[in-house]
Amino acid sequence: MAKAKNVVVAQSGGPTPVINSTLRGIVDMCKAMPDRFGTVYAGFHGIEGVLKEELLDMSAQPAEEIALLGVTPAAGGIGTCRYKLKPKQTEDFERVIDIFNAHAVGYFFYIGGNDSMDTANKVAKLAQERGRDLVAVGGPKTIDNDVGDSEFKLIDHTPGYGSVARYWALTGQNANEENDGSCPADPVLVMQAMGRKIGFIPAAARLADPERRLPLQIYLRESGLTLAAMADLVNDELKRSGRCLVVVSEGFDVGSVGERQDSFGHTQFSSSATTVEQVVVNYLNDVGLAARGAARGNVPGTDQRHNMIYASIVDIEEAYKLGQKAVQIAVENGSGYMSTILREPGPIYQVRYDKVPLEQVANSERHFPEAWISASRVDVTDDFVRYARPLIGDAWPAIPLVDGRQRFARLEKLFAPHKLPAYVPQAYRTE
Amino acid sequence: MAKAKNVVVAQSGGPTPVINSTLRGIVDMCKAMPDRFGTVYAGFHGIEGVLKEELLDMSAQPAEEIALLGVTPAAGGIGTCRYKLKPKQTEDFERVIDIFNAHAVGYFFYIGGNDSMDTANKVAKLAQERGRDLVAVGGPKTIDNDVGDSEFKLIDHTPGYGSVARYWALTGQNANEENDGSCPADPVLVMQAMGRKIGFIPAAARLADPERRLPLQIYLRESGLTLAAMADLVNDELKRSGRCLVVVSEGFDVGSVGERQDSFGHTQFSSSATTVEQVVVNYLNDVGLAARGAARGNVPGTDQRHNMIYASIVDIEEAYKLGQKAVQIAVENGSGYMSTILREPGPIYQVRYDKVPLEQVANSERHFPEAWISASRVDVTDDFVRYARPLIGDAWPAIPLVDGRQRFARLEKLFAPHKLPAYVPQAYRTE
Repeated sequence: MAKAKNVVVAQSGGPTPVINSTLRGIVDMCKAMPDRFGTVYAGFHGIEGVLKEELLDMSAQPAEEIALLGVTPAAGGIGTCRYKLKPKQTEDFERVIDIFNAHAVGYFFYIGGNDSMDTANKVAKLAQERGRDLVAVGGPKTIDNDVGDSEFKLIDHTPGYGSVARYWALTGQNANEENDGSCPADPVLVMQAMGRKIGFIPAAARLADPERRLPLQIYLRESGLTLAAMADLVNDELKRSGRCLVVVSEGFDVGSVGERQDSFGHTQFSSSATTVEQVVVNYLNDVGLAARGAARGNVPGTDQRHNMIYASIVDIEEAYKLGQKAVQIAVENGSGYMSTILREPGPIYQVRYDKVPLEQVANSERHFPEAWISASRVDVTDDFVRYARPLIGDAWPAIPLVDGRQRFARLEKLFAPHKLPAYVPQAYRTE
Repeated sequence: MAKAKNVVVAQSGGPTPVINSTLRGIVDMCKAMPDRFGTVYAGFHGIEGVLKEELLDMSAQPAEEIALLGVTPAAGGIGTCRYKLKPKQTEDFERVIDIFNAHAVGYFFYIGGNDSMDTANKVAKLAQERGRDLVAVGGPKTIDNDVGDSEFKLIDHTPGYGSVARYWALTGQNANEENDGSCPADPVLVMQAMGRKIGFIPAAARLADPERRLPLQIYLRESGLTLAAMADLVNDELKRSGRCLVVVSEGFDVGSVGERQDSFGHTQFSSSATTVEQVVVNYLNDVGLAARGAARGNVPGTDQRHNMIYASIVDIEEAYKLGQKAVQIAVENGSGYMSTILREPGPIYQVRYDKVPLEQVANSERHFPEAWISASRVDVTDDFVRYARPLIGDAWPAIPLVDGRQRFARLEKLFAPHKLPAYVPQAYRTE
């Protein structure tokens, strides 16, 4: 029997409440097969940690902390980074292979979005070219739900999306309680949702009100609406119900109204340094609405991607199993795949875990289905609700409290010893 | 024995997650004394509903809905309003008395802040002058914790504050998980807290990290710091730990930097239509920090006062008992009091419910104790932590979920029949 090889796992891109569940699934599964897998290292702060030889020893962590990763949000566990291995950064790629050689790494698990799948694929290929037996498998992750294809054949949904969808379902409900009962002075509440390029996140606000009883309008980036059209629609709603909940994508096109210049002739603040929410609220108050000061806004910002309180237990479980599945794929199928989740047909929500070639994922692009945007352009259809509803689950996550605070995983700073000279990642060089 | 008299309860001002618990306490306690109390009406949307004779019949509501008020946030139950009965609005005062006469109301419970206690007091006095036997008792409420005195002798803390304190404790923890593990591109996260006039809300962010292990800076309105000083302090923290969590009060003085003009010579947007968070983030990125684009911000906005998920179970219970206590005061002591909560001395958190004259509350003013601001001006002391920590409790609130959504109370629209001609509240008249 072949000697067990070590493992490197790394996360990439923006965090989610369940990214650490996938990490946990990988660690648990590797530990369950000691003949096959040696030490599991985590690239501290993603691939950057691999380049810098900052390898956190996950095998030596207390079992309790690994378990708590399941209720620890964001990237607090091992960190993440937006550092990208671009094709021309050949030295970076070589460095990764050198690090893997130096630490007897035979398996590389990369948790991330489309770009990361591309990177994992390239690393695997390069290793092969250099005659090294490296198995690279990806694990999907994004709150944006933009991994894979628009037909949901490569992947049904990405881990992280179910939790941010639950964020908007519950946040929308709570916001309605105030908006419904509050004074006529603030009848319009504008809430800015993430998802600069794709509308799955704001769309999930419909889950707060699937029966359409509330005066809720959802402005996807894909709506094609203008600020002026929004003002008309909000005014209509004010006439109907005296109030309006507006969920607007941070990618909603506010046109040139968003660009504000400084009167002193120099740009003190960058013109893009105004949120869509602020532009919308100001426009409604100053131009669009009859009553001045009728709109106010909330910008949850990063809270929607790092807040464990809203995490979907369905999402937590699926993310964990996708981590486990990635390890199973590495053992049974070898390099070049991403673990994926596919939905079984039929009225009962049921999924199966499968594999999909990294190359297919890397070359795919997902759009928000046009058929799921309502004719009104400010709503999504029941088909979308049927798609998204099962993802938010039916229970609260069980986050332990210690001394009134959330008890998140606290990994010990146990790093692999340095074996190679220091290295400056290519993108950080100032040549 | 005297015939039972009817009851009017009304809420005033901004909502909290536990305002409906006080309402529930009043309704339950009145129902428990049918010899004393007849029908309990709620002024729909506060005192405005009383003026308009929109009286929701709370006695006829299903028991389940009344119970669910305990986990229903904001003012969704009966609504609230910022409408104020100003002393000169004598017609409004007369109208309230007329409404009470018409509906055989002998008890008036008013849930609100300092202003509302003043109003309740004036209504009671006017009723007396008119020879009417009306018992008016107040119930305290504000997330700002600004009711009463600075020595905490009239009231220890207001219901609502414990929940928003828990909001900042848990939000701060979740934000740290991303800030700690995220890429160096976004090392500064600015979060804007409510509390325009007083610093109790941003101060509560310290509960996220009472041991001071995190790079957390808290900018109270009372700090006296400038934007330039903030930039220096944040730069210091970046040098120390490479990252910084900034909690800034919406009342923090950003000086003239916040005023932005339009280059076209006309004011397209009101110059005040920029959040403190936006000014701070822009200032840090464009002027204050070495690295451009190093700061980003979240504005939770109204979420912090209407989000049930964060509600403190201590706060829920205390708010309920303060409602009960208000009814007990009405029975045993009569008119002119507010129910209050006082802290017993000693290391074990223990409170007692008492009464305090409305007039004392109305004429008092609370400041954030200067002694609780640290010498650094960007932190609060352990004494503050000892004060605030018990208020957030040690458990999650039990919010029922139905079909994945929060099951909030849904009161039936059962209104008392109109007995008086229609009336336009004085502040709404266009004479």
